[in-house]
Amino acid sequence: MSKNIGILGGDLRIVFLSKMLAEDGYTIYTYGIENIDYYNCKIIKCETIEEMSKYCNCIISGIPFSKDGVYINSPFSSKEILISSVLNDLANKTLIAGSIKKELKEEFYKNKIKIIDLMDYESLTILNVIPTVEGAIQVAMENTDFTINDSKCLVLGFGRIAKLLSKRLKDLGANVSCMARKEKDLAWIKAYGYKEIHINNLIENLNKYDIIFNTVPAVILNDEKLKFLKDKNKDVKLIELASKPGGIDIEKAKEYNIKTIEALGLPGKVAPLTTAKYIKQTLKNIDELQYIF
Amino acid sequence: MSKNIGILGGDLRIVFLSKMLAEDGYTIYTYGIENIDYYNCKIIKCETIEEMSKYCNCIISGIPFSKDGVYINSPFSSKEILISSVLNDLANKTLIAGSIKKELKEEFYKNKIKIIDLMDYESLTILNVIPTVEGAIQVAMENTDFTINDSKCLVLGFGRIAKLLSKRLKDLGANVSCMARKEKDLAWIKAYGYKEIHINNLIENLNKYDIIFNTVPAVILNDEKLKFLKDKNKDVKLIELASKPGGIDIEKAKEYNIKTIEALGLPGKVAPLTTAKYIKQTLKNIDELQYIF
Amino acid sequence: MSKNIGILGGDLRIVFLSKMLAEDGYTIYTYGIENIDYYNCKIIKCETIEEMSKYCNCIISGIPFSKDGVYINSPFSSKEILISSVLNDLANKTLIAGSIKKELKEEFYKNKIKIIDLMDYESLTILNVIPTVEGAIQVAMENTDFTINDSKCLVLGFGRIAKLLSKRLKDLGANVSCMARKEKDLAWIKAYGYKEIHINNLIENLNKYDIIFNTVPAVILNDEKLKFLKDKNKDVKLIELASKPGGIDIEKAKEYNIKTIEALGLPGKVAPLTTAKYIKQTLKNIDELQYIF
Amino acid sequence: MSKNIGILGGDLRIVFLSKMLAEDGYTIYTYGIENIDYYNCKIIKCETIEEMSKYCNCIISGIPFSKDGVYINSPFSSKEILISSVLNDLANKTLIAGSIKKELKEEFYKNKIKIIDLMDYESLTILNVIPTVEGAIQVAMENTDFTINDSKCLVLGFGRIAKLLSKRLKDLGANVSCMARKEKDLAWIKAYGYKEIHINNLIENLNKYDIIFNTVPAVILNDEKLKFLKDKNKDVKLIELASKPGGIDIEKAKEYNIKTIEALGLPGKVAPLTTAKYIKQTLKNIDELQYIF
Repeated sequence: MSKNIGILGGDLRIVFLSKMLAEDGYTIYTYGIENIDYYNCKIIKCETIEEMSKYCNCIISGIPFSKDGVYINSPFSSKEILISSVLNDLANKTLIAGSIKKELKEEFYKNKIKIIDLMDYESLTILNVIPTVEGAIQVAMENTDFTINDSKCLVLGFGRIAKLLSKRLKDLGANVSCMARKEKDLAWIKAYGYKEIHINNLIENLNKYDIIFNTVPAVILNDEKLKFLKDKNKDVKLIELASKPGGIDIEKAKEYNIKTIEALGLPGKVAPLTTAKYIKQTLKNIDELQYIF
Repeated sequence: MSKNIGILGGDLRIVFLSKMLAEDGYTIYTYGIENIDYYNCKIIKCETIEEMSKYCNCIISGIPFSKDGVYINSPFSSKEILISSVLNDLANKTLIAGSIKKELKEEFYKNKIKIIDLMDYESLTILNVIPTVEGAIQVAMENTDFTINDSKCLVLGFGRIAKLLSKRLKDLGANVSCMARKEKDLAWIKAYGYKEIHINNLIENLNKYDIIFNTVPAVILNDEKLKFLKDKNKDVKLIELASKPGGIDIEKAKEYNIKTIEALGLPGKVAPLTTAKYIKQTLKNIDELQYIF
Repeated sequence: MSKNIGILGGDLRIVFLSKMLAEDGYTIYTYGIENIDYYNCKIIKCETIEEMSKYCNCIISGIPFSKDGVYINSPFSSKEILISSVLNDLANKTLIAGSIKKELKEEFYKNKIKIIDLMDYESLTILNVIPTVEGAIQVAMENTDFTINDSKCLVLGFGRIAKLLSKRLKDLGANVSCMARKEKDLAWIKAYGYKEIHINNLIENLNKYDIIFNTVPAVILNDEKLKFLKDKNKDVKLIELASKPGGIDIEKAKEYNIKTIEALGLPGKVAPLTTAKYIKQTLKNIDELQYIF
Repeated sequence: MSKNIGILGGDLRIVFLSKMLAEDGYTIYTYGIENIDYYNCKIIKCETIEEMSKYCNCIISGIPFSKDGVYINSPFSSKEILISSVLNDLANKTLIAGSIKKELKEEFYKNKIKIIDLMDYESLTILNVIPTVEGAIQVAMENTDFTINDSKCLVLGFGRIAKLLSKRLKDLGANVSCMARKEKDLAWIKAYGYKEIHINNLIENLNKYDIIFNTVPAVILNDEKLKFLKDKNKDVKLIELASKPGGIDIEKAKEYNIKTIEALGLPGKVAPLTTAKYIKQTLKNIDELQYIF
């Protein structure tokens, strides 16, 4: 029985993942993914969660598991699946999903459901940087009348995403500046050949760029800075890559007529197949799951 | 009077060009661009071509000048402007446009219209490689479920566009192969670190790729090769970059259900502002135009 | 008097630094650098340390300050300068140097000498990665009969130096693999487009490379692994970049006739001028030194 | 008999080539390479050319075949081998060598010796660009006190070597400018992200660089330009990559005390093994030699 896997909702990443697992020889039982054509894949569509849990000890669900804490994230289903309705059937099963909220985890724990939250695996987070950065570049290309090549780009922050994004932008021919606070990061910025901007000197440099990417999860482009951009009458695109609340005051940007693109959840949007591969690779490296993957 | 310039139709590139020229101090007279908001640019909209030619010795039109040989290319106008209707008014003027057909050139010559065809300037053609390649990458990103990074890309041909495209793809993390016929090109392909595929060995390699970009203006992916792809059941995206008839048999590709994207005229579509800058730069380097630019 | 700076020994980096400071308008007093021609720089050679300390509150010495804990590192002097002989004269002065040993620091402290150890400044350590990596590449080029391009390179470790080294090698056309232990590092290695080798799988991959660079400060290439290389009769070059004891068992490598190059202290050797600039930049960022720099 | 190959003189490239051919199963007969240890390779040292030609129809010699037109280029022999002394023995044989002078070719023709001049094969010339460029970078690293990273480099010319050299320098972090004359080349320079310098504007830009690489085989840095550099008191390194007479007036550069490095014949010097591979690959692609390779 260990070669059966349940798929419970999930977006295109989970669909691709289930196809790959089917190709690897697993028997796949799905619930909450009706509107997808699985072609010649061996997939069994279950009528109820109970049916699925009869055959599967290990059940994979979406990233995030739920958007509202009430329903399971299942964009390819016409059903609305209440989380509360599946608790019983999942008892003693292993549930793999992403970004499971703390309260839900407690609920699952009470119901003896073992949980693997994919977001707890740093290597997946790192791999997700790749599609995030490609997505950011795609978004930039789609929202500008000019080429990345020869454009002036500012990246706010110098964490994971910022590091790869700066490299890719430079490779595409952009003039890249990065803003950071720590001396250490500023030294790395220089070492990699970008222009370093200390956060304290941000405002006086702000009107030099064609595109500004934010990767910092704390407000950097606040009212004052956005007003400065507006006053300088600068035609700049802002691209928000940090999750809510993010680093750009979106409301103010709108008020000042500064074009801002919120580009979140990019891996699932721009490269669900690649991301599915990363998830599969991550599953194979999780000790608790070695009995099945 | 030499500081006046006429703008006759043209797409977003010509609009951006006219704005830049206005900012440089030229007085701009337009005809056939009504549906564009010129904000605070000093632009005079003419009611007739005659009016424009009264003030302007030098008139810039679109790329291409005409799509059908009958009407002037003027996407931002609700008017349909017959070429035949402007010949008289343009006598003794200099007309700058792109891809003017041979028969039209003769017609202009008879009417004493001096012609500058922008496509005759190799440096512009070379500069256009940049937005073409970025556009090709954007198209590839938009039409795939995976990242360019780690994908297997084949570039057919090793001319201008292929050279820069291969570089950019490799920089983005793709595994790049290039197909060529000449020993010389194959040596360069190797020198730049791509895998070289001799045209004679194309078919046996064809099913190894995720994306195939064609840059050759002669049919390479013919019925035989496309059938091979179909038989191998290969999920590949074909991107056509060469102008008609191109290197991919589009009809057959459709028949075999192989996804094919025709990506032509990319500079004007993905980066009209950048392209406008290149046009301006080209105008400044043309000897016959030094009296005005 | 605050615009005087003393220079006490030091290698070419300190010589270049003193020239730059002289050009910036400082008056430079030297001791222990006789064998250098300072051309048209305004430099005052002191006869004694006492003389120097009469004019200077801030004294810069070498990196490392001392190689043996007894004499000051002064390669451009024919004098041997005992550390014990300068303690008195440096009382109440600020001494800037690098890699000052703990016992010496205590000795200085007792003598009321304020110490700035340049190696405590992370931004300098990061900047030094640049000349270290260029030096490593130069050493590799000088010790091989083949090009870096198309060669197979393995980098042991994925810390600071390894990260930039891998990038540069790949940019030069090498096939780059990196060995690491942590899942996180392996994910980054993949994200940057190198082949990832888990430390547990090192030995079975070891005979695939033309050059192996070590950056890990703990023995990785031990007797067993070196013997494996010897048995496979593999013509490989080993380049040691980690400081003593390093990651390569040098004695065993010699015994097995495997060519090994110890490439230490590269910044001072291959790019003393660049390193001097980094030191100057670091001095300007040190709060305690703002009274003078 | 067709599996025998003669080796007549030649430098390390020819030695490596003969080892590779021996490994491939050819029987190798050498003359004029005594001072090389061939380890476990199956190599037969001939006492006379006559002996070699008894066994071999195809004989490989050095690049260049002769340095003075009188003796065969044989650095690993203590013999001096007169070209005139081998003509008889080589009659009806195929002689493969490089850069054979025109007069010699006629002489060979008269003696019924078939000649393959490796320098006539464009793909080898192109592949040689790789070690030439790596060698140029190695030479630059060895002759400077600073890193290539962040240095200001000027490349004179935009032919084969210049194109790859500019790419590599930029990849290493240099600020790269390229000088050319043709509009077309200047457009490419811009397209690849380097700063373009028109040859007419060279002199006013000349004092901005740390390293100047010449690839043009006609004097560019003449007395006037070198004097300008000297007057500006600019500490610049000149690296000559073009063959004699080259683009730098070496005598004047010496007179003005401007450091100049003549870096010629780099492939044979810095990467004889890689170059031997390229030669082997070229031999395999020569139609007339398909009977043997």
